[in-house]
Amino acid sequence: MNAEIIAVGSELLLGQIANTNAQFISEQLAELGINVFFHTVVGDNPKRLEQVIHIAQTRSNLIIFTGGLGPTKDDLTKEVVAKCLGRALVTDKTAMDQIEAYFIKQGRVMTENNRRQAIILEGSHVLPNNNGMAPGMIIENPEHRYILMPGPPSEMRPMFLNSVKPYLMNDLNEPLHSRVLRFFGIGESALETELMDLIDSQTNPTLAPLAKEGEVTLRLTAKHKDAAVAQELLNDLEQKIQSRVGQFLYGYGDATSLPKVVFELLKEKHLTVAAAESLTGGLFSQQLTDLPGASSVFKGAVVSYTNQVKGHLLEVAQTTLDNAGAVSRACAEEMAIGAKKQCGSDIGISFTGVAGPSTEEGQPIGTVFIGIADDNETVVHALELNGSRAAIRKRTVLHGFDFLRRHLID
Amino acid sequence: MNAEIIAVGSELLLGQIANTNAQFISEQLAELGINVFFHTVVGDNPKRLEQVIHIAQTRSNLIIFTGGLGPTKDDLTKEVVAKCLGRALVTDKTAMDQIEAYFIKQGRVMTENNRRQAIILEGSHVLPNNNGMAPGMIIENPEHRYILMPGPPSEMRPMFLNSVKPYLMNDLNEPLHSRVLRFFGIGESALETELMDLIDSQTNPTLAPLAKEGEVTLRLTAKHKDAAVAQELLNDLEQKIQSRVGQFLYGYGDATSLPKVVFELLKEKHLTVAAAESLTGGLFSQQLTDLPGASSVFKGAVVSYTNQVKGHLLEVAQTTLDNAGAVSRACAEEMAIGAKKQCGSDIGISFTGVAGPSTEEGQPIGTVFIGIADDNETVVHALELNGSRAAIRKRTVLHGFDFLRRHLID
Repeated sequence: MNAEIIAVGSELLLGQIANTNAQFISEQLAELGINVFFHTVVGDNPKRLEQVIHIAQTRSNLIIFTGGLGPTKDDLTKEVVAKCLGRALVTDKTAMDQIEAYFIKQGRVMTENNRRQAIILEGSHVLPNNNGMAPGMIIENPEHRYILMPGPPSEMRPMFLNSVKPYLMNDLNEPLHSRVLRFFGIGESALETELMDLIDSQTNPTLAPLAKEGEVTLRLTAKHKDAAVAQELLNDLEQKIQSRVGQFLYGYGDATSLPKVVFELLKEKHLTVAAAESLTGGLFSQQLTDLPGASSVFKGAVVSYTNQVKGHLLEVAQTTLDNAGAVSRACAEEMAIGAKKQCGSDIGISFTGVAGPSTEEGQPIGTVFIGIADDNETVVHALELNGSRAAIRKRTVLHGFDFLRRHLID
Repeated sequence: MNAEIIAVGSELLLGQIANTNAQFISEQLAELGINVFFHTVVGDNPKRLEQVIHIAQTRSNLIIFTGGLGPTKDDLTKEVVAKCLGRALVTDKTAMDQIEAYFIKQGRVMTENNRRQAIILEGSHVLPNNNGMAPGMIIENPEHRYILMPGPPSEMRPMFLNSVKPYLMNDLNEPLHSRVLRFFGIGESALETELMDLIDSQTNPTLAPLAKEGEVTLRLTAKHKDAAVAQELLNDLEQKIQSRVGQFLYGYGDATSLPKVVFELLKEKHLTVAAAESLTGGLFSQQLTDLPGASSVFKGAVVSYTNQVKGHLLEVAQTTLDNAGAVSRACAEEMAIGAKKQCGSDIGISFTGVAGPSTEEGQPIGTVFIGIADDNETVVHALELNGSRAAIRKRTVLHGFDFLRRHLID
């Protein structure tokens, strides 16, 4: 099956938004083993959309549309697809009832143009929209399948996952089973070198590394009719990977992250943390408090951008600041102890270093110290990082979460 | 001139990255008044790329390529375009010298495949690449213009701005002059209502509103051969806009932001700020310290996620916490004063409220208090915000920067 994704919407051609729908669908189809050969973006123009559909029919057999299903005159995907396929447009009773119920619930009067959203192509399989009004649809012809979905990602993504993906999987003789392994602290090329023979000899399961934002993801995908057999194939491969680079594995799945893993570990162990942040300027605290329920594990932080704040609020000794300096192992140690004590947490974590743009106290850009204090001891990790100011800040925080994770599983 | 943007790269079809290059170029071309009718994405496959070029030639006269100019066998844009145009490929001496110099500077040995990057289409106008090795090129035919640029945005964007944009502007009889006005505190529809007659009657200058991330941008574009006349047209329109919604205007240009405006105001007035953050959990501090040189205006912050931290580190009175509660006008006031005093800054700003997922102390989600303290007085602003936890946190911080901005220009 060769797929083409057609996004309809002038806002894309004006550069107001990026075509993230095509990225999402492509990633999903890649997981299902379906080749995507083309993405096309076209505006709200019936003649050009018709041309684009005719071209797609000559080169693709799965044609997925996003956008142009709304209530306004600009929304013309259904009309043009109907014309190209020679199908009639009819009102879908279920969709109409849902739209009317939506307006009653909102206490609003439904305008006439909203009826357009209940119109579908005759003979199509209707996909419910749980996050908006325009339903999606699947149309099957002997040579082509057409899938129409709304443009807003908040409507399209759940519709794809809940309706389109099961439909496509049902169609594959040997369903795919994936497992995603997340690594931190090892680069993509080092990971590939360690696993070279496994990558070179892959057939079933397949093994795909992907680097993003300071970490590496490995996607293992097994094909088998029997789910239990597929899981065994994945277990065998994971075991081989674990034996070589298991010390860098921190979690499973696309949705996890180092902050989430640390948050779950803290909750599980009924422990709390507090932070002292210099070069990271609040980034660690912000990432942890992004997670709903963070207050059960996080007490607070001191962002100490001056020596005065380090001394006054974190009780870093003046002699430490004078002798070792603010960017030092000794200062990181006292900051971690200070955060723990001043915020009343079980664990204190500290970040001090030089993010740039200029060096500080004679220390080069990228010098970083991370301290972790608990009731028993305080450990300081020294790092030398590369990259821009923003990259150094981000990586410092990722390392902090990873040190904390290792501390918690010790 | 009708443009089509063709991105070449299998990583786009696998969904590993979104086609942000097409968005960037589209936005730039829209500013220049050039219509973009299609975006196409195709993989590293010569046959399919050739098909895509032939289709583009039938419907577009400005064809812009991104990607496929690198040193590996996968990079085949030049070869296929040369074939479609019947042009030879030749080595460009300037590009070759630059590549060789690059390797010498890096102390690395140049591998043979890097020579491929100095190959250009015969008769093309070469575009220097200041951020990588592969040069871009412009090829003019009677009916079409072709522009080839590298795929990495860090190379493509400066090349577009430095070479392609001037080339295209030179070509327009009446160059375009733009001015971007940034607003905060007024919604897109309210702004449109206020300016309805100006929007409806627009011809030269044109007026385009765009909402993004809690703020609204207005782009004014005037067309005139004489730059001074164009600026006058823009001044006249801006004056009309100012007289109606000037109180919401906070800055000019695509590159500015509320944190940047506040940072510049603080620097200009030689003032420093410190923060006390509850519901925002470090987000305000993180955004301010994202800016290089933040240490000249920012002393530090206390992230007070518990009442204990509010009392101990910010000196919020126990009676305030007991009687008014942590989410209150009184607590915001004492937090702002505490941040100022404890961090030794000229101004203290505080954030307390309920971001969700659950209500707190009987206060509904979205209740927010922001305090600003200086040597003379302390003012507390109360807000009721809607949206997800993440949206409430983001908007709270934007409001905080805006209150601070108004405080500083008072």
